Amino acid sequence: MGLSAMSQTWIWYPGDYEIWLGNRMNNNRTERGAFFPPFWKTDSHYVTVEFSKEIDLPEDEVIVIKAEGRYNVKLDGKLQFGEPSRFIIPAGKHKLNIKVWNQATVPTLYVKGKSVNTDSSWKVTNEDKEWIDESGKASDTSATTYASAGYWNFDDIDAPPSAFRLLTEPKEKVACELKTADGARLYDFGKETFGQVVIKNPMGNGVISIYYGESPEEALDTAYCETLDKVEFSANAVTDLATNVAIDRKNEYTLDNAKAFRYVYVVPEKGIGYDDVAMLYEYAPVEYRGSFKCSDPEINEMWDVGAYTMHLTTREFFIDGIKRDRWVWSGDAVQSYLMNYYLFFDSPTVKRTTRLLRGKDPVTAHINTIMDYTLYWFIGIYDYYLYTGDREFVAEIYPKMQSLMDYVLSRANKDGMLEGMTGDWVFVDWADFPMSKQGALSFEQVLLCKSLETMKLCADIVGDSADAKLYGELASELRGKLLPTFWDEKRQALVHNVENGRKSDQDNRFANMFAITFDYFDEATTDSVMKNVMLNPEVPMITTPYMRFYELEALCDRGLQKQVLKEMKDYWGGMLKEGATSFWEKYNPEDSGAQHLAMYGRPYGKSLCHAWGASPIYLLGKYFLGVKPVKPGYEEFSITPVLGGLKWMEGTVPTPNGEISLYVDSREIRVTATEGKGYITIKSKTMPAANYGVFEKVGADTYRLYIDSPRQIKIKYKEV
Amino acid sequence: MGLSAMSQTWIWYPGDYEIWLGNRMNNNRTERGAFFPPFWKTDSHYVTVEFSKEIDLPEDEVIVIKAEGRYNVKLDGKLQFGEPSRFIIPAGKHKLNIKVWNQATVPTLYVKGKSVNTDSSWKVTNEDKEWIDESGKASDTSATTYASAGYWNFDDIDAPPSAFRLLTEPKEKVACELKTADGARLYDFGKETFGQVVIKNPMGNGVISIYYGESPEEALDTAYCETLDKVEFSANAVTDLATNVAIDRKNEYTLDNAKAFRYVYVVPEKGIGYDDVAMLYEYAPVEYRGSFKCSDPEINEMWDVGAYTMHLTTREFFIDGIKRDRWVWSGDAVQSYLMNYYLFFDSPTVKRTTRLLRGKDPVTAHINTIMDYTLYWFIGIYDYYLYTGDREFVAEIYPKMQSLMDYVLSRANKDGMLEGMTGDWVFVDWADFPMSKQGALSFEQVLLCKSLETMKLCADIVGDSADAKLYGELASELRGKLLPTFWDEKRQALVHNVENGRKSDQDNRFANMFAITFDYFDEATTDSVMKNVMLNPEVPMITTPYMRFYELEALCDRGLQKQVLKEMKDYWGGMLKEGATSFWEKYNPEDSGAQHLAMYGRPYGKSLCHAWGASPIYLLGKYFLGVKPVKPGYEEFSITPVLGGLKWMEGTVPTPNGEISLYVDSREIRVTATEGKGYITIKSKTMPAANYGVFEKVGADTYRLYIDSPRQIKIKYKEV
Repeated sequence: MGLSAMSQTWIWYPGDYEIWLGNRMNNNRTERGAFFPPFWKTDSHYVTVEFSKEIDLPEDEVIVIKAEGRYNVKLDGKLQFGEPSRFIIPAGKHKLNIKVWNQATVPTLYVKGKSVNTDSSWKVTNEDKEWIDESGKASDTSATTYASAGYWNFDDIDAPPSAFRLLTEPKEKVACELKTADGARLYDFGKETFGQVVIKNPMGNGVISIYYGESPEEALDTAYCETLDKVEFSANAVTDLATNVAIDRKNEYTLDNAKAFRYVYVVPEKGIGYDDVAMLYEYAPVEYRGSFKCSDPEINEMWDVGAYTMHLTTREFFIDGIKRDRWVWSGDAVQSYLMNYYLFFDSPTVKRTTRLLRGKDPVTAHINTIMDYTLYWFIGIYDYYLYTGDREFVAEIYPKMQSLMDYVLSRANKDGMLEGMTGDWVFVDWADFPMSKQGALSFEQVLLCKSLETMKLCADIVGDSADAKLYGELASELRGKLLPTFWDEKRQALVHNVENGRKSDQDNRFANMFAITFDYFDEATTDSVMKNVMLNPEVPMITTPYMRFYELEALCDRGLQKQVLKEMKDYWGGMLKEGATSFWEKYNPEDSGAQHLAMYGRPYGKSLCHAWGASPIYLLGKYFLGVKPVKPGYEEFSITPVLGGLKWMEGTVPTPNGEISLYVDSREIRVTATEGKGYITIKSKTMPAANYGVFEKVGADTYRLYIDSPRQIKIKYKEV
Repeated sequence: MGLSAMSQTWIWYPGDYEIWLGNRMNNNRTERGAFFPPFWKTDSHYVTVEFSKEIDLPEDEVIVIKAEGRYNVKLDGKLQFGEPSRFIIPAGKHKLNIKVWNQATVPTLYVKGKSVNTDSSWKVTNEDKEWIDESGKASDTSATTYASAGYWNFDDIDAPPSAFRLLTEPKEKVACELKTADGARLYDFGKETFGQVVIKNPMGNGVISIYYGESPEEALDTAYCETLDKVEFSANAVTDLATNVAIDRKNEYTLDNAKAFRYVYVVPEKGIGYDDVAMLYEYAPVEYRGSFKCSDPEINEMWDVGAYTMHLTTREFFIDGIKRDRWVWSGDAVQSYLMNYYLFFDSPTVKRTTRLLRGKDPVTAHINTIMDYTLYWFIGIYDYYLYTGDREFVAEIYPKMQSLMDYVLSRANKDGMLEGMTGDWVFVDWADFPMSKQGALSFEQVLLCKSLETMKLCADIVGDSADAKLYGELASELRGKLLPTFWDEKRQALVHNVENGRKSDQDNRFANMFAITFDYFDEATTDSVMKNVMLNPEVPMITTPYMRFYELEALCDRGLQKQVLKEMKDYWGGMLKEGATSFWEKYNPEDSGAQHLAMYGRPYGKSLCHAWGASPIYLLGKYFLGVKPVKPGYEEFSITPVLGGLKWMEGTVPTPNGEISLYVDSREIRVTATEGKGYITIKSKTMPAANYGVFEKVGADTYRLYIDSPRQIKIKYKEV
């Protein structure tokens, strides 16, 4: 949004940089010293692309050209000698074409002139269908498909995109404990962190083994810790034994592959010693634009730990967890996006992650091989558009939405519903109760319905009325079938699935809570589902923060903030009581001790820093501060603060180019919205009074005030 | 064929090495110092692939592992530490999986053990759909699509595929002429050649310009020659001004980018001098397995120059021409394949070229953007199978044939015929007469019909009976429509095209000659078409060797070798008389002097070494020596020698693992076929006599002898 107006920046074929950078990122995972790339199809950038721009110059102009890759320059179809880094374009109308080839990294281009500068207004193609006849006449290239160039924030000619690295900062241990007479030591860095271990002043020769732990138990368990390194020091060289890469020996050695840890257990072989172990902390330079503080210190700690969890997992892309898998997963990412809108409001990371997950055509499998994850991908675009209003991105990604939806629909059954087919991972959740993955799951159909609605929305945005009609009809049809297919009158719930034409008798919260959040039930049905499913302890409990995200959202949606606050304190508070310095992949309050560390049949398989653990960020911003967009990009917003048992709270929610900040206690509210227009809606025993504007009554004890100015509004009211 | 049985070799995802090597090859083209990559979609290899092999060992076995890229090793699902280069597999049944990631070059693998060795029996996938549940149990990977590993002849662990280079050999000039007082010299290397120019003993500083010419006119025309280089010598460095690459200065400088030339015009700036100019000749190590000699020295020269033309254009792939474009074009390649069967019988180069041309899915345009070139691609596979009998390759390529044919059929009109759509280049030929490209061209439908027949044949080979039925029906339907749609009773010809439902009144040889060769006419129709089209001087003449290939083939097919010999002497003999040392892209006997060099509106645009110029190789082997396979891979062959006016001829035609050699004069024939079984059919005034076997009479003056032994057979007969 708006970035295309900048003066000059490195550009590329849209989506290609993300695919390349994503490969580099996803391939950083290791498991006990073994390289561990993803098991889904990994795409690659287009290796030859042509950039073009039509220009009209009042006078001659000198341009500077730099490309990553071999390149040529054509002015009005005439090839220039060599790879000119400086070139004079004469005054007048011209067509400038620059073709770049690069197999190893993405073909990128930077042009800087007085008026001719690379930006998203340049066109780019990977197949400039062009030919000349025998007379030398070039055919027109009307059949060539051009896209608008991709870009990020690489505005410096000397910092090309392939050189991108996250930032680093040296950090020291907070404690060190000698564990054996041979000099094995356990280092504690004070909290969950991520970076490269540094060995200072190695002395002598031999192998130093480094065992990483998110817990001391893990670091000390050399046979089962999830990640480790072994480094061999010889007279002149140091060899990383996992990659066999050797470098010259100096008085400090920094391991190449950054890892997640709080604890590091360093075990030197006989004959080798060292002075100290430190680290290079690696991070993305994102800014906490959102904030939250309240009367409950535990909730404040929860917000801080959630924000740090998000910071650690917001990297080149939004990843799942920093220890394992360090991969980009669509179901995890869609939650990171939502948390991001209440924390960083970093749109480029949402766009990068969305592009990487989608990859290239043809689609041969679901995203991450998971059916639900394909559907979340569509919903993530719905959310992105709602929060940012970024039509440019919708236009860019729409063709890829079409081809992915083609794939999805080609696998629907005769009722237009998705059932798991060979090769589909039907995931839903890591649940502690049995769950069938056979037949049509209500959960998947609810997500499909929302995905089809997203297609309709985006088709309208790009002006494809035929598609809008098609997807609109498919969405209504499917929505019309949800209750007839899955509704169980006795249980007052959508049952889990239909197998061989029969409704199963499994019930759980999954489809029901999404249907509430998506507003797929009428009011009476919602009330009944709340009572019979969501608040019914007989229905199996959810034990992952992943699905608690949606569960608590559904409760908040029904105004049950008080209950949600209690559940947050039990659940996330429970992790804090266990000493969490970042939130976990999974938490079962009934576990104890090292049970908390185990998962996937491995004693330390669980990730203790997992993005989907950070949902209090989202819940507190959207349902306590109560801020959300009503029209795309916060052009219109709504603010519905709910203390939910807190004495007071204050905080900030970022908007595309501004913020909404609030202070709320039981008698006073102060609110400032620096952009957009909207409403604040509050429950009050008396008619509230504002220093600016007038409240109107919109329901029992419910009042609304129109906001159309960036000035601070002070409200007096009486909490219900 | 048979190569899969070799002990160990580097392997990769099938087709990927070709795509990578093809990009390197196609991107070697330059035009007057500018980098000139192709204008069609350039694909890329899969960057992450997993190789797997199920093994059963009687005893423990040590294997050595080497990969190009980062890799991991799993034995029975368990990841091993690091990137082991040596690994012990215990006795028993195991599953070995090795996953390799490489962005810049193709992920390749080499494993060497006593019994466990990489070869085409290994499976490979680019998306091993695999996931584990929370208990740590891995899902089965039954949905993963595995292919058989690709390979070539990289059998040495220390010579990995990405290091492949053609061979080189130093060569000297045969003449040198001083052209200016400033020291500009014209070097003559004696004949058309290809390689890197070497500047010996440069003295002083400054720029040396190098202008290449296939003719002296071109080399000396510094403003218009097609290729040139500029190199700057300074005190310590030498800079290639086209690529801006600088290297240390030594007493000899070899240019990086090899070029085609016979003449090199070297122009030093003031202040720089040198002793001599030489070259590094670059070539593919292919062997002349075919041969031809006869009583006519001009025909012998023609065969030699044709063979050299083929040698120069047979490189990493079969390319069009060595000066320009140096690209792989499907229409050119399909002729190179046929010539190859009578010269090198180098199947790997046919397979590599076929794979590269096809590239990856999805198909978004015709091969090389040309409709006819897509169709030739199918026909090339038909020919390949007929000459080699290689079912393994058909099985490998069949899925790619399917998706390409899907693309083709998705663009057919309501009659199942192809018309040029936006983005399609309908090429046919560089013709000197007007030719419509609108509507349905009979030429394209004849090629489509043969392509559908190829699909049917290959579907049968891979055992896909549904496809065989489908394509068989489509082929018959289309063949049934050819005459009703295009036949002009008055002209006794297939007319050129149908536009807006009307037969045009253009007639030319194209569709008619293919219909004859493909046997699409009945005998009477063929006779009439021969008279009214092929032998009718009123029908516009063909002036490219490209289409003369098919034209002369059709004449030979009708037994008109005498006329063909005359036309060969006029046409190819004409080029020889013009001093050709390799055959040209185009030749018009009516041109004179420098007119012969011009094409595409450029004075030296024509390529003087073009693969499609070498067709005498094919015509002499197939229609004079008369050798061809009847059943795939020469399991059954036919030999029908025709002297066509020659006093005697002798030659060899290679077969997959042997050869057929012949001596023929008007009274005696000696033939040896080292593999396969077949027939020799000869025309004789009397019953011929053989030292082995007995002739049977099969027609007027026509006799046939069954051959089923590798011994030499001597035949006495009397030429008709």
